[in-house]
Amino acid sequence: MHPDVLSAMALPLTGHLDPYFLAILDQINEMLRTVFVTQNLLTFPLSGTGSAGLEAALVNTLETGDTAVICVNGVFGERLCEVVKRCGARVERVEAPWGQPISPDDLARTMQRFPQARLVAAVHAETSTGVENNPAALGRVIREHAPDALFVLDAVTSLAGIPVNLDSCHVDICYSGTQKCLSVPPGLSPVSFSERAFARCQTRTTPTQSWYLDVSLIGRYLDASQRAYHHTAPISALFGLHEGLRRVLNEGLEARYRRHRAAGERLQQELKKRGYQLFAAEGARLPQLTSVLLPDGVDDAAVRNKLLHEQGIEIGGGLGAYAGKLWRIGLMGENATDEVVDRLLDALPS
Amino acid sequence: MHPDVLSAMALPLTGHLDPYFLAILDQINEMLRTVFVTQNLLTFPLSGTGSAGLEAALVNTLETGDTAVICVNGVFGERLCEVVKRCGARVERVEAPWGQPISPDDLARTMQRFPQARLVAAVHAETSTGVENNPAALGRVIREHAPDALFVLDAVTSLAGIPVNLDSCHVDICYSGTQKCLSVPPGLSPVSFSERAFARCQTRTTPTQSWYLDVSLIGRYLDASQRAYHHTAPISALFGLHEGLRRVLNEGLEARYRRHRAAGERLQQELKKRGYQLFAAEGARLPQLTSVLLPDGVDDAAVRNKLLHEQGIEIGGGLGAYAGKLWRIGLMGENATDEVVDRLLDALPS
Repeated sequence: MHPDVLSAMALPLTGHLDPYFLAILDQINEMLRTVFVTQNLLTFPLSGTGSAGLEAALVNTLETGDTAVICVNGVFGERLCEVVKRCGARVERVEAPWGQPISPDDLARTMQRFPQARLVAAVHAETSTGVENNPAALGRVIREHAPDALFVLDAVTSLAGIPVNLDSCHVDICYSGTQKCLSVPPGLSPVSFSERAFARCQTRTTPTQSWYLDVSLIGRYLDASQRAYHHTAPISALFGLHEGLRRVLNEGLEARYRRHRAAGERLQQELKKRGYQLFAAEGARLPQLTSVLLPDGVDDAAVRNKLLHEQGIEIGGGLGAYAGKLWRIGLMGENATDEVVDRLLDALPS
Repeated sequence: MHPDVLSAMALPLTGHLDPYFLAILDQINEMLRTVFVTQNLLTFPLSGTGSAGLEAALVNTLETGDTAVICVNGVFGERLCEVVKRCGARVERVEAPWGQPISPDDLARTMQRFPQARLVAAVHAETSTGVENNPAALGRVIREHAPDALFVLDAVTSLAGIPVNLDSCHVDICYSGTQKCLSVPPGLSPVSFSERAFARCQTRTTPTQSWYLDVSLIGRYLDASQRAYHHTAPISALFGLHEGLRRVLNEGLEARYRRHRAAGERLQQELKKRGYQLFAAEGARLPQLTSVLLPDGVDDAAVRNKLLHEQGIEIGGGLGAYAGKLWRIGLMGENATDEVVDRLLDALPS
């Protein structure tokens, strides 16, 4: 985190209906629209982590018996399936192997079989594998084959690191997290709902199963003409997000994407030079999250513990079937710099 | 907030699986057990506000067709009913007029009619009315008439302000908020589940409708022998809570209760002397939240705006049918002092 973001977390508090705070909240929502590249009025930080955003996207739009098409090529696609089931809805999966992106053609074939699907969800940046799925291509397929289906995009690890353009990609609902490329402490989930997605939330036949995440109710607090109490906003976290977004826009989205791209490519090229094998398919590699297979004979836990305790560097291990076989190296937000890349390369076993 | 709590919010971050952070989390849970006065192993801060705690208490324990007995004498009792319905469960209400506590005899009569109730829920400190419901008396009634029913207690505005004794009051599930008497920024909900409550969560026939609030899954992250990833913990908020709890225990619970009691009684006596009429029934008045009827001819919004903008003092207005007719004055945590009482009294219209 940048020190200015941390300092903002420690600002004196106001009430959650204080005009000063409400002006800050309105500014946050406006900055989020710029970062999501959307005109969506209902764009705001949800009072929970990215997983709460995932849940909000689904519980507000699905009802018992609905069909949801879910793109699955990693842990977070699986999590979407799990939450769909808890909504009493049916999951139709479009799969790709871990390390590969979802094929838009595969999605098209599934959409032809399920044109009545209520929504289609995909993960933009699969944090478990380092793979980017292509929202523009997926969005086109959905609009062509199932124009009434909502397009739900998980942008937890992509927002403010690689281009996320909600409106031009036909995304109806997007959720993110603060602790990835936004470089703000974890705890909030920026979300955005298109007008037609919000209309679906308000015209459903049963109330959503989550009162806490009910966007119809939260929308009445966000609306300056109503400001109806729903729950107490997490003021300090929002002050931190405000400063983090200010820094993102001060740098500029294009410059920020370039910085992430440059740092990620540098790391990936250097790793290849050193004989490491990258895991994610070429052409779909995220710059902000590099997945690399463990070299033969390297002890996963020993290396990661040594990095953490001796160098203060944390890298992620593999998840699921790739536990002990993969490293996941983040270069997100403030960390997406040449200096950080070099520090890590110096510390890695050669 | 005390400046030390705000400073803790700005500490450099660690990962959510970093051993340093996990030790802090274990200490938080241990301190929460002391503050809740419980031996419950499953005691932790949920990653959402008090309303998320309310939802977690119900969605983890109720299934479709269950009956829940809800004590209702204010806004937060109504909210419990709303969430029960969203679980597909049936609500049986035990009511008291706003300003009056729930009668244990009324609860006993309802329990005799619904001995099969899966749970009974009550709000300890009704923030909408300034009334205390008696957890010891309600807990005895529940154990006597429906020993299998779980007792759910809302301690959002009571924890660390007035005595909350989970184990001696037979409370099975309790949830609170950080921004009331704990004097920590809003954003977390300390919760505690008894062993039998947790067993119910794990033996339900259908998965709980909320993945984010599923305590079976969260329990696997909290358990040092598993530490299974569920969602990213809100690190900064937890650093703030750690410092806040340290301050609470450093003062001592009894001393803290005395301080709240003294400040609240001083305010209530002075208001009566000045001709104000207290709203909450005598004998059930919360010290940390004083409700008072507006004197004739006083303009609610004008006075509260003047206090906020000229004196930096925020008092709450009435909710629901009492909008414009009631003030709700909080003296919680750091604010429960004679100095704060005197500053308010000097600023109020005489």
